[in-house]
Amino acid sequence: MTDAPVVTAAMLAIGDELLSGRTKDRNIGHLADMLFLAGIDLKEVRIVGDEEEHIVEALNALRSRYGLVFTSGGIGPTHDDITADAVAKAFGVPCSHDPLAMTLMAEMYARRGMEFNEARQRMARMPEGARHIPNRVSTAPGFVIGNVHVMAGVPQVFVAMLEALMPDLPAGRPMLSRSVVSPFGEGDIGTALTAIQKAHPETSIGSYPRFDGNRFSTEIVIRSRESTPAEAAERDIMAMIADIAGTKAAG
Amino acid sequence: MTDAPVVTAAMLAIGDELLSGRTKDRNIGHLADMLFLAGIDLKEVRIVGDEEEHIVEALNALRSRYGLVFTSGGIGPTHDDITADAVAKAFGVPCSHDPLAMTLMAEMYARRGMEFNEARQRMARMPEGARHIPNRVSTAPGFVIGNVHVMAGVPQVFVAMLEALMPDLPAGRPMLSRSVVSPFGEGDIGTALTAIQKAHPETSIGSYPRFDGNRFSTEIVIRSRESTPAEAAERDIMAMIADIAGTKAAG
Repeated sequence: MTDAPVVTAAMLAIGDELLSGRTKDRNIGHLADMLFLAGIDLKEVRIVGDEEEHIVEALNALRSRYGLVFTSGGIGPTHDDITADAVAKAFGVPCSHDPLAMTLMAEMYARRGMEFNEARQRMARMPEGARHIPNRVSTAPGFVIGNVHVMAGVPQVFVAMLEALMPDLPAGRPMLSRSVVSPFGEGDIGTALTAIQKAHPETSIGSYPRFDGNRFSTEIVIRSRESTPAEAAERDIMAMIADIAGTKAAG
Repeated sequence: MTDAPVVTAAMLAIGDELLSGRTKDRNIGHLADMLFLAGIDLKEVRIVGDEEEHIVEALNALRSRYGLVFTSGGIGPTHDDITADAVAKAFGVPCSHDPLAMTLMAEMYARRGMEFNEARQRMARMPEGARHIPNRVSTAPGFVIGNVHVMAGVPQVFVAMLEALMPDLPAGRPMLSRSVVSPFGEGDIGTALTAIQKAHPETSIGSYPRFDGNRFSTEIVIRSRESTPAEAAERDIMAMIADIAGTKAAG
C-alpha cells in the first residue's frame, strides 16, 4: 500500500437550492467520508448554481487540477437540470440520449406502468463517450467522462451511485489518522502544539475546537501516510497534555 | 425596496477537517439562509484546506467576482490557523497583532484568570486596515477587509459573528419565493414545467425532487424579484398539477 500513488479529488455540487438555503447539502460530507476511507485526498469543493457557464468554468478548473472530480445534482428531468449538457460542453462533445440508458429506463417505466415521457427521457442524456454509473434506486444512470463522475443530487441516489462507483476508483495511499482529545482549549495548547508540528514534519496535525456553550476543548488529529511519525507525534501530544494538566493542578 | 441593487456574494469555507469528512460543515447552510433573508444572492461556495496558496487563490477569485465574500475557519490559536495571514497576503498588506483586539482579549482572559499566551495572542492578528466583527461568544474578533468578511469556523461563533455583521451589510433586493408541492415526481411534471418556465421568463422556477424510499414527489419553487410574475407562474403550476391529477384519475 505504501507505494500506491497519492490520488487527489474535487467535488462540484450543483444547484440553486444549495445556495438559497432551501436545501442543506448532505453529499459533500458523505463523499468526504468515503474518499477518506479510500485513501483519496479531497482537496477542494465548489458549489455553484444552475447556470451553464458557471458549471463549465468550475468543472474545467477542477478537472485540470485534480485527479478525480465528482459532481452532484442537475441530472433530473426538468428544465433546470443542465449538468449533462454543461459537462458535454466542458469536454467539447455532443450530448445526446444514450441508447443503453433509454432501454433501461423504458423497461423500468413499463414495469411500473408509467409513461416514459420527454421529461423522463431527458435523464438518459449524457455526453458522447460517457459510461454509466448504475443507479439501483431509480434506474436513471449517472455517468463518467474523463476523470469526471456525474451523480444525482438526491442524497439516497448520490449514495447509491457512489457505492457503485467506489470499486472502480484508483486505490489511493491511505492516510492514517489518530485522534487525541484535549480537555484544554486551543489557547492552552496552541504554542506547544506548534512546536510539536515543527518537530514532526512528516505528519499533518490539525486541532479542532469544540465549544459546549461554556468551555472550549480540542480534538487533535494527527494525519500521516506512515505510522511511525504519527506514533511519535501522538506520544509528544499526550506528554504535552499531561504537562498542562500538571501545571494547572499546581496553579 | 424594488430599486435596491442586486447584491452578490460568495463563501469560502476553510479547513482540512471539512475535506476529510471529520467535520460536517454547518456554516454554509446557515449563511445561505441568512443571505437569502437579506435579499443577497449567494452565487458560489468553495471549500479549501489549510494551505495558504490555495486560500489566497480562491479568495482573490471570489472577491473580484462577487460583491461580498464571507469566510469561515482558520482564525483560531494554532499553527494550522492561517486565514488571517492568507487574507493579508491576498490583499498585499501586512498581518499583525491588532491593538484593540489585544486589549479586549487581554481583559477577557484576565477576568477569567487565564493566561493570554502567545497562542491566544495569535487570534488578535489581522490584516492592517481591517475592522472588527464582534464575537460575543469568545471575544476574539473576526474582521472585515475590503469586501471580505472573515469569521470563525466553530458554528456557535460563526452564527454570533454573522449576527453582528448583518445590520452592516448592504440591503439587497429581496428575492420573493413561493413554493408549491407537487405529489408527482419530476418525470411527470418536467415537460409541462419547462413550458411554464419559458412562459414566465421573469421568474426562476426550480424543482426539487424528494424521495421517501418508495415514490418521488417534487417541491416547485418560484423565485422572482417582483410579485406579479411569480403569482402568474404559480397559477399555471397549480393548473398543471390539477391537469396531471385529472389525467391520472381518468387513466
